Amino acid sequence: MPHVTEFLKRLLLGRALRSEELGGTLLPKRLALPIFASDPLSSVAYATQEILLVLTLGGLAYLHFTPWIAAAVVFLMAVVVLSYRQVVHAYPSGGGSYEVASANLGPSAGLVVGAALLVDYVMTVAVSVASGVDNIISAVPALAEHRVPMALVFVGLLTAVNLRGVRESGRAFAAPTYLFVTGVLLMCGTGLLRYLLGDPPVAATARYGVEPDPAEADLVGLALVLLVLRAFSSGCTALTGVEAISNGVPAFRRPKPRNAAATLAVMGLIAVAMFAGVTTLAIVADVRIADDACRLTGLPDCENYTQRTVIAQLAAAVFGGESSFGFFYVQAATALVLVLAANTAFNGFPLLASVLAQHRYLPRQLHNRGDRLAFSNGILALAVVAGALLWAYGANVTSLIHLYILGVFTSFTLCQSGMVRHWTRELRTEADPVLRRRHRTSRIVNGIGAAITSLVLVIVLVTKFTEGAWLAVLAAAVLWAAMRSIRGHYDATSAELAVTDPRRELAPPSRVITVVLVSQLHKATLRALAYARATRPDRLEAVTVAVDREAAGELRREWEEAGIDVPLRILDSPYREITRPALAYVRSIRRESPRDVVSVFIPEYVVGRWWENLLHNQSALWLKSRLLFTPGVMVTSVPWQLRSAARADRPAARAPGAVRRGEPVPPPGH
Amino acid sequence: MPHVTEFLKRLLLGRALRSEELGGTLLPKRLALPIFASDPLSSVAYATQEILLVLTLGGLAYLHFTPWIAAAVVFLMAVVVLSYRQVVHAYPSGGGSYEVASANLGPSAGLVVGAALLVDYVMTVAVSVASGVDNIISAVPALAEHRVPMALVFVGLLTAVNLRGVRESGRAFAAPTYLFVTGVLLMCGTGLLRYLLGDPPVAATARYGVEPDPAEADLVGLALVLLVLRAFSSGCTALTGVEAISNGVPAFRRPKPRNAAATLAVMGLIAVAMFAGVTTLAIVADVRIADDACRLTGLPDCENYTQRTVIAQLAAAVFGGESSFGFFYVQAATALVLVLAANTAFNGFPLLASVLAQHRYLPRQLHNRGDRLAFSNGILALAVVAGALLWAYGANVTSLIHLYILGVFTSFTLCQSGMVRHWTRELRTEADPVLRRRHRTSRIVNGIGAAITSLVLVIVLVTKFTEGAWLAVLAAAVLWAAMRSIRGHYDATSAELAVTDPRRELAPPSRVITVVLVSQLHKATLRALAYARATRPDRLEAVTVAVDREAAGELRREWEEAGIDVPLRILDSPYREITRPALAYVRSIRRESPRDVVSVFIPEYVVGRWWENLLHNQSALWLKSRLLFTPGVMVTSVPWQLRSAARADRPAARAPGAVRRGEPVPPPGH
Repeated sequence: MPHVTEFLKRLLLGRALRSEELGGTLLPKRLALPIFASDPLSSVAYATQEILLVLTLGGLAYLHFTPWIAAAVVFLMAVVVLSYRQVVHAYPSGGGSYEVASANLGPSAGLVVGAALLVDYVMTVAVSVASGVDNIISAVPALAEHRVPMALVFVGLLTAVNLRGVRESGRAFAAPTYLFVTGVLLMCGTGLLRYLLGDPPVAATARYGVEPDPAEADLVGLALVLLVLRAFSSGCTALTGVEAISNGVPAFRRPKPRNAAATLAVMGLIAVAMFAGVTTLAIVADVRIADDACRLTGLPDCENYTQRTVIAQLAAAVFGGESSFGFFYVQAATALVLVLAANTAFNGFPLLASVLAQHRYLPRQLHNRGDRLAFSNGILALAVVAGALLWAYGANVTSLIHLYILGVFTSFTLCQSGMVRHWTRELRTEADPVLRRRHRTSRIVNGIGAAITSLVLVIVLVTKFTEGAWLAVLAAAVLWAAMRSIRGHYDATSAELAVTDPRRELAPPSRVITVVLVSQLHKATLRALAYARATRPDRLEAVTVAVDREAAGELRREWEEAGIDVPLRILDSPYREITRPALAYVRSIRRESPRDVVSVFIPEYVVGRWWENLLHNQSALWLKSRLLFTPGVMVTSVPWQLRSAARADRPAARAPGAVRRGEPVPPPGH
Repeated sequence: MPHVTEFLKRLLLGRALRSEELGGTLLPKRLALPIFASDPLSSVAYATQEILLVLTLGGLAYLHFTPWIAAAVVFLMAVVVLSYRQVVHAYPSGGGSYEVASANLGPSAGLVVGAALLVDYVMTVAVSVASGVDNIISAVPALAEHRVPMALVFVGLLTAVNLRGVRESGRAFAAPTYLFVTGVLLMCGTGLLRYLLGDPPVAATARYGVEPDPAEADLVGLALVLLVLRAFSSGCTALTGVEAISNGVPAFRRPKPRNAAATLAVMGLIAVAMFAGVTTLAIVADVRIADDACRLTGLPDCENYTQRTVIAQLAAAVFGGESSFGFFYVQAATALVLVLAANTAFNGFPLLASVLAQHRYLPRQLHNRGDRLAFSNGILALAVVAGALLWAYGANVTSLIHLYILGVFTSFTLCQSGMVRHWTRELRTEADPVLRRRHRTSRIVNGIGAAITSLVLVIVLVTKFTEGAWLAVLAAAVLWAAMRSIRGHYDATSAELAVTDPRRELAPPSRVITVVLVSQLHKATLRALAYARATRPDRLEAVTVAVDREAAGELRREWEEAGIDVPLRILDSPYREITRPALAYVRSIRRESPRDVVSVFIPEYVVGRWWENLLHNQSALWLKSRLLFTPGVMVTSVPWQLRSAARADRPAARAPGAVRRGEPVPPPGH
C-alpha cells in the first residue's frame, strides 16, 4: 500500500492522475483508520493530563470535577464526530473544513479556516513533539535536562525525512497507531479489572498531596467556574485532528463516503474509549501531577524531581513499576505515535499551502511541484516556526497547548456553520420528501455541532487568551491579511494582463536592433556575437563600456586584429560605472525609433560552485535587472559553461519527496 | 578644496581622469598634513595610556620604565618616518606598502600586506571609535554604562555617512586635526611650563596607589623583560597610520615626492612632540590608571568609579579641573579626531579592496563603481566586522589594541624589506656614482627600518599573541588564502576563455529554433511571441507545460479562438513539474540537430515591490538558471512591466558616494 500520502494529496487537489497509478492504492478501512487517526488518537496522550494540571492549581480540592469535565469532552467528541460524518457525506471531495467554509460562508470565511489550519499544523508539530519528548523523559528521567535539544532534534529529523523523501507505506503508519491503541486499551482494561477485583493500581505519586497555587486556592463563584472551564478547554485537546478523515475521503475504497463515515465512527469510539479509560484510571490510581513539582507536598527533593506524564504513571502503576516491560512498551508506543502525529502535519501543511496557492492566496510556487524549492519551502517554514515555538516555550506541552485548541475550534465552528447553510440551500431545491427529512436531520446535527463548537470556541478564547492564545490569534490574523493581499495582487495582475486585441498585441516591432555587450574579447563574447548574428537583426553592434580607457583601447586593437566584422562601439564612462552608460545607450536607441525593439545580448559565465557566482556576472545581472524595467527591450543571456559548471549540472535525479510520493524514477538524461 | 577623497582614490588606482577635474585639487602641504595625519596623530590619544596600563600591572614599581619605553617608541617612529620618506621618493604612484611588497618581494608577499592592511582598517575603526567613546565618557562619566551602544552608534553613523555620501572637503578634515594638535601641544606646553616654574600639574588620581596584579607582582629576569616589552608593544600603537602619506603622494602639489616627504617629516615631528609631551606630562602629573579600577588603592567606591583617559586626566590637571573650558576643549577635539581617524578607514578599506579587485584577488564588482552595490559592500563589511569586534570586546580599547599593532608592523616590515631589494636592484643598473651613493644610503636606512620593524614585529607577536593577536593573525591568514584562491579562479577562467580561433568561434549556428514558453494567454505572452517572431527564427513554436491538463486544454482553446498562428505544443508533466519537462524538450531539440541553437523566450513580469517578486517568475527563474547549463541554448527574457514597476524604475539619481566623490549630477533621463 505505498504512495498513500502522495495519492491523498493529489486527490485532495482534485487533479487528474495517471489512471494506471490509481490501481490498488485505495485504502481499506483497517489501514485508513491508523493513517488518519495517529493525530487525533495521539492527543489522548496529553488530554487527561492537561485537565488534571489545571484542576490541581487549586490543590486536590477540585479534582472531583475531573469526571464531569471528561464527560463533557466525550460528549463534545461525539457531537464533532457526528457532525463530521455529515461533512464526509456532503463533501466527499476531501476539501474538509476549508472547502465547506469557502463554499458556504464565502471565501473570507474559508480563508479564516485556512489561516487557522496553517497555525494549527505548526502547533500539531510543536505539541506532539513536546509530548513525545515528555514521554521519553518519563521512561528515562536522566534525559530531563535535554528536553529542548531533544525536541529540536526530532523536528530536525522530521524535516530531513520530509525534505529527503523517505518511502512511507500505509503499514508503516498503521503499526505504531495500533501498537499505541492496543497498549493504552490493554493498560486501561488491566487497570480497571484490577480495580474491580479489589486490587486497584496505585500511582507512584498517589502518596503526595498538592499544595494549591496561592492565586487559585479556595475559589468560589465565577472564579471557580472559570477554572473548571479552563480545565475543560485544556481537555478539548483530545479533539485535535478529528477532522483529518474528512480531508481524506477520496482515498477510501468505494463507497467512499460510507467507508469514511464508518471509519470516523470507529475512530471516535476508540478515542472516547481511550480518553475515558485513561481519565478513569487516573482517578482510580490517584495520579498527582502539578505544573510545578514543588507544589507536590511530601516530595523530598522537588527541585530535581522530574514529573512523569499521566500515561507513564498509569503504565507503571498497572504493569508493575518503571522497569516493567509494559511500562516501556506503552512509553515507546506513545512517543512513536506522537512523532507520527507530528509527521502528518509535515504532510498536511505543504498540501494545504498548495491548495491555498492554487486559489492564489499564497505564492504560486507553493502550488506546482516542478520548482525544486516549492515543497521544501513549506516544510522548512513549518520546521522553523515549530522549532522556534518549542525553543521559546522550553518544549513545555502545557504552555504550547494554550496556543493550540483555538485554531481547531475556529475551523470546527466555521465548518459546522457552513454545513448548516449547505443543508438550508439543499432544502431549497430538494423535492424528494425522504431526502428532505434526511437533510433536515443533518441540518439539526450540524446546527448542534455549530452551536456547541462555537460555545467551546468562546470558552477557549476567554480562558486561554491571556495565557498564549493571543499569539495564535495574532498569527492567524496576520496570515489571513497577508493571504488576502496576495490574492488582491494576483487579481490586479490578471486584470492588467488580460488580452484585449490579440491581433494588435501580436504585431511585431518594425525592426530589431541588436546590441551585444562586451567586456573582454574571449570565447564567451564570440559565442554571443555568433548567436546574435544568427537572429538576423536589422542592425547589429557590439558595445563596451569604457570603465578603463586604456583597457577599452586595448579591446579595440584586439577586435581589429581578430578581424571581427561587427562594429564595436565604446561608451564613455567618466565615473567608472557600467550600468548607467549602457542603460542610457539602450534608451537612446529606443528614443530615436520608438517602434523598434532593442535586443540586448549578454554573455554570461555559468559556474558550478556557489561562491564562483560571486566572482562573475555581477555587473551583468544588475544591468539585466535594470534593463527589464525599460519598455521595448528584450534581454538575451548567452551562457558559456565553464568547466566547473559540469559539477552543478546534475539535477537531483528526483525532486525531494518524489520517493515518498511514489513517483517512478525519470529516465536518465531527463 | 573639495573632491579630495575621490581624487586620491582615482589617482591611487592609476586611472585616467578627466583632465578638467584635475585642476586646482592638488593639495598644499598645510591641507595634506591634517588630511593624512588624523589617523597617525590621533593614536597619541591612547599610546601613552596603553604603556601605563601594562606597566601598572606590576603596581607602581615599574613606572620608572615609562620614559625609556617612550624613548624607544620615539626612536622607532623616527626610523619608520625616515624609511617611509624613501618609499615616497621611490614609489610616488601612491601604492604604498602593498605596491612595494608586491613589486619587490613578489605577489604573495604583497598579498600578505594586503590582508594585513584590510584587517588593520577594521581595527582602526574599532580602536579609534572605542577610544573616542572613552574620551567622551571621560568628559561625561554618566555615559559610562552606555559604552558599547555609543560605539555602535558611531560606527552606524560613519556607515550611514559613507553609504549616503556626504560632501567632504579638505577643510572639514583639516579643522579637527589642527584643533586636536593645538589643544594637546598647548596642554603639554602649559603643563611643562608650570612644572619648570615649580607649580607642576597634579593629576586627580595622583594620590592613589596601584595594587599590583598578583600574577605580575615582583617580577624579575625574563618575566620583567617581557612585561616591559609588552608595554613597548602597546606603545607602538603610536605608529599606526604613519604610512598613510605614502599612499597619498599623487595628491600633493608638485614636486610631489618632495612635498610628501616634507609633510611626512613634519607629521613625524608633531607626532613625536605630542607623544613625548603627553608621556612626560603623565609622569610629571603622576597619572594613575589601571586595567581594573579596583586595583587603585585609596579609592572609596571602586566598583562605580569610571577611570578617565590619560589625556582627560592631564587636561583636567593642566587647565584647572574637569569643568574647565580647556578640559572640554581637549576632550571634544580628541573625540572628534578619533572619529575622523575611523572615517579614514571607511575611505581606505573599499579603496584597497578596489585595488585588490583590480589585481583579481577580490571579486571584480569591488573594483568598478558602476555596480550600485560595489562600494556599499565594502563599507558594510567593514562596519559589520568592526561593530562585531566592538561588541565582543565591550568597546575596550586595551583589548582591541592587542589585535591592532600586528598588522601595522607586518606591513612595515615587508615594505622596508621590499625597499632594501628595490635599492639593491637599482644599484645593479645605476652607473652614476652620486646616485649610487644615495641609493646605498637609502638602502642602509631601509635596512635599519626593516631590521627594527621586524624585531618589533617579533616582540609584538610574542607579547600579544595569546592576548588576542592570534585572532588578527588568523583573520589575515584566512583572507590571504581566500584572495589567493579567488585569483586562482580568475586565472583559470581567463585561460579557459582565451580566444584560439576567432573565425571558427564566430561561426554562426546552422539554424535557430525558437521556443516561447507560455503559461497563460495574456498580453505578456503575446509580446514575447511578437518579439520572438521579429528575430526571424528558422522554426518558432509556443510551448506550455501541462501541469494541469484541464488548464492546458483551456489554453489550447483560447489559443485557437484568438487565432494565433504560432503552433502551441503541450508538454506532458505527469508529476506536475515545470522545469524537468521543459528542459527535457529543449535538450531533445539539441539532440536531434546538435548544430542548431535553441532560443528560449520567457515572458517575465517586472514588478515594483520586493515582495511582488516572490509572487511571480519563480518557475521562470529556476528554469532559466537550469537552461543556462545546457550548451547551445540562449535564453531571452521579454519583460512586461506591471504598473507597479514604475515605482522601482527611478534609479537613484546618483550612485552612493557620488556627491563625496564630487561627480556632477547626470542629466535626467539617464
